Amino acid sequence: MAPQLDSYYKAIDGLTDTFIDRLAEAVAIPSISAEEARRPDVVKMGHWLKSQLETLGASMEARELGKQPGKEHLTLPPAIIGRYPAKKDESKRTILVYGHYDVQPAEKSDGWNTEPFKLSVDSKGRMYGRGSTDDKGPVLGWVNAIQAHQKAGIDFPVNLLMCFEGMEEYGSEGLDDFIIAECKPGKFFEDADAVCISDNYWLGTEKPCLTYGLRGCSYYSIEISGPGQDLHSGVYGGTAQEPMTDLVRVMGGLVDTNGTILIPGIKDLVAPVTDDEQALYKNIAFEMSNLYESLGSETGIFPDKERTLMGRWRYPSLSIHGVEGAFSAPGAKTVIPAKVIGKFSIRTVPNMEPDDVDKLVYAHVEKAFAGLKSKNTLKISLQHSGKWWVASPKHWNFTAAAKAVEKVWGVKPDLTREGGSIPVTLTFEQATGKNVLLLPMGSSTDAAHSINEKLDKKNYIEGIKLLGSYLHYVAEEPMTVA
Amino acid sequence: MAPQLDSYYKAIDGLTDTFIDRLAEAVAIPSISAEEARRPDVVKMGHWLKSQLETLGASMEARELGKQPGKEHLTLPPAIIGRYPAKKDESKRTILVYGHYDVQPAEKSDGWNTEPFKLSVDSKGRMYGRGSTDDKGPVLGWVNAIQAHQKAGIDFPVNLLMCFEGMEEYGSEGLDDFIIAECKPGKFFEDADAVCISDNYWLGTEKPCLTYGLRGCSYYSIEISGPGQDLHSGVYGGTAQEPMTDLVRVMGGLVDTNGTILIPGIKDLVAPVTDDEQALYKNIAFEMSNLYESLGSETGIFPDKERTLMGRWRYPSLSIHGVEGAFSAPGAKTVIPAKVIGKFSIRTVPNMEPDDVDKLVYAHVEKAFAGLKSKNTLKISLQHSGKWWVASPKHWNFTAAAKAVEKVWGVKPDLTREGGSIPVTLTFEQATGKNVLLLPMGSSTDAAHSINEKLDKKNYIEGIKLLGSYLHYVAEEPMTVA
Repeated sequence: MAPQLDSYYKAIDGLTDTFIDRLAEAVAIPSISAEEARRPDVVKMGHWLKSQLETLGASMEARELGKQPGKEHLTLPPAIIGRYPAKKDESKRTILVYGHYDVQPAEKSDGWNTEPFKLSVDSKGRMYGRGSTDDKGPVLGWVNAIQAHQKAGIDFPVNLLMCFEGMEEYGSEGLDDFIIAECKPGKFFEDADAVCISDNYWLGTEKPCLTYGLRGCSYYSIEISGPGQDLHSGVYGGTAQEPMTDLVRVMGGLVDTNGTILIPGIKDLVAPVTDDEQALYKNIAFEMSNLYESLGSETGIFPDKERTLMGRWRYPSLSIHGVEGAFSAPGAKTVIPAKVIGKFSIRTVPNMEPDDVDKLVYAHVEKAFAGLKSKNTLKISLQHSGKWWVASPKHWNFTAAAKAVEKVWGVKPDLTREGGSIPVTLTFEQATGKNVLLLPMGSSTDAAHSINEKLDKKNYIEGIKLLGSYLHYVAEEPMTVA
Repeated sequence: MAPQLDSYYKAIDGLTDTFIDRLAEAVAIPSISAEEARRPDVVKMGHWLKSQLETLGASMEARELGKQPGKEHLTLPPAIIGRYPAKKDESKRTILVYGHYDVQPAEKSDGWNTEPFKLSVDSKGRMYGRGSTDDKGPVLGWVNAIQAHQKAGIDFPVNLLMCFEGMEEYGSEGLDDFIIAECKPGKFFEDADAVCISDNYWLGTEKPCLTYGLRGCSYYSIEISGPGQDLHSGVYGGTAQEPMTDLVRVMGGLVDTNGTILIPGIKDLVAPVTDDEQALYKNIAFEMSNLYESLGSETGIFPDKERTLMGRWRYPSLSIHGVEGAFSAPGAKTVIPAKVIGKFSIRTVPNMEPDDVDKLVYAHVEKAFAGLKSKNTLKISLQHSGKWWVASPKHWNFTAAAKAVEKVWGVKPDLTREGGSIPVTLTFEQATGKNVLLLPMGSSTDAAHSINEKLDKKNYIEGIKLLGSYLHYVAEEPMTVA
């Protein structure tokens, strides 16, 4: 395989300018899914991507997903799906890859140093632009990998199924049902042998990683109401029971300063750490200084790397996000809010079943409120929940990717998890019944979702090499399942 | 005195249409002090008021108060001050009256049933319009009282000093310094013997009241900060100490559901209830149903009238208003806010010195935060404070007003306090060193500051009688100070 990859790498090096131009072209289309007025740009981006792949001989389709739920005047951008080569080679494995072609909002005035929708490459090879790393760079990684194979004149190692969506930054509206339907027998994605998603980031800046786990998230609202309308604290303070008083008392019993969840029963749901798992953490390229740098402070909970990474990846956490309905502006307003809604969420991990978590949360909050003996009214509800996902990093999909990383980057990848959720991961796992691998291209400093988002040229070009190499290794990896 | 008042009352009845037309003219000027674009209307309203009084022979001045602090491009509307009769009669007492000619914002679309800046009188004599009761009706009460004296051909009983401001609904910017300066020897208000303010409301709808006390207000911010910027709870939840977690725990220890302030030492500052004071509460026209109706719920703290009124008027209360810097919009956002500012205020009563309250609050909050052993940073600060005010209801200024109420309304007034603050009251008391009386014209259902603000025609017309009668009684009341 090595000689074949060498000519592939050579082709990529020769096409570097083409690939950067392609990324610049993509960044120039402001495909912001959260902004109604940009919807035509999102659609335009989808069709641009489709035509890039069609030019390379892929068989592509733009699948309509219907109207946007809750905004029925808006049509969802299409799922761009396809297959390369256009005709399936029955002798080869089939790998399903996913990415998204929409981006987060961006305005120069947010604090960008360059125009967000113009790719600007600086002297250190940092390519700034909205979507550069999230997720246009990785999506074009697959496109570029196809082109480089053609230029090198080498056989494409797998049947590649592609699924690119345009609503990822707005809750992937409409996608889950589509994926589930297309994974059924006789449908587009039915023959996937494994799934690869490139839509996350290295843990640091130097060492690539493979990601095998994500936490879930259960998001709750505690609504406490009493008076029929907001009251003046001068007139009613001292005569009425105040919902905000009750709310802070209930929320004050959810979690402590060191992140310990105070809801009885939660910790009993958490899978114990095994020796195997413990061993994975020891060599991961991460220092406490990395945490402090990204926090912008030294207000971490744990003093050591292992416990910090476990706190992020494999233990649950509870964050209180804010209060709706109370006074939230600068200055002073002497209002007694009539109805306040406290928002908090729990990041969940194996083996926390969302339903079990809900029951424990409801019981705890209801008991805490009952203890106040308040005449106000409590409503506790789940806003949304997404389950955690953990794959086996010993699956052939992962071992193949690890070999590709070592080939391209000369180092064994870290095996990481993420504290956040990428809900589509679990959807693909459940719909295909196959292993899902997260194979990131960008690094921790890429500032996805923030101002001055960038992708390093090295990560982009070597990333294209990596994606192609992964396809070669995964085509031949012995199919052992750990 | 009675015959003189009878001809005065007769003149008022004869001038009813004139007085309502005058109020309609005043309401038609949208003198909203909080809206920059309306500043010319505020100024216009001041000059209109000045000219109304000049036409009646008063000596008036429009005194400039300079630029608006923090908005230096805006000139403050003038204080309209004056004297009637124009030349002081040294044989008569001098009464200083205060009112304001600016109003709260209002838009028809806020939910008004009628145009807010067009006085609309319904079949029940309810006169709807912004400013009708707060405070254009009462201010015109003084103007109308002068006119009715002239029409009746009776001698005006006192030297009337007038102080009308145009920024009351926006913090009375610039007024305090002006009042203090003009109460000094040789200045405009130096010879006031007593002060009367008509800018509050009856406790209910049937029975007039005299108001002898107001609570103060000390407004605090608890700022807790940690990370350099907002964080994603997926990435940092479980690894960083969260400011919002600390804040709800600290705020949860301020006050309980029944309004008991949990800050040690606060209750020791509160003056004990005397028998005299207790006796005042017994006959006050107030039912628990009044509270429930205005709350729009039955979520009161106390089941009885006396304790409820004391909770409003003569005991301190603590309200938590909200949180700045946290997520406050509808929906779900998985943010860990980097810096959150909790806002709360304490309504203060005799003998709570604001400085003592500050010290107790700071000590309590700092101790509570220290108990969390958090690495985050706490800042507790006072946003503003205004002291409580209590006058003796046995002062001749009050006994005179009580006789006037009984003469006009045929009932002894309730002696009430208010839970809120009217800071100018304390300013007048301190600057003049004289007794200040709050003599309301409107009723509890007038909806000042709300939509569909109104003043009942009966309250307006009888109120004009009341204000004039008060001047007659106060001119002759024996000067005993209780």
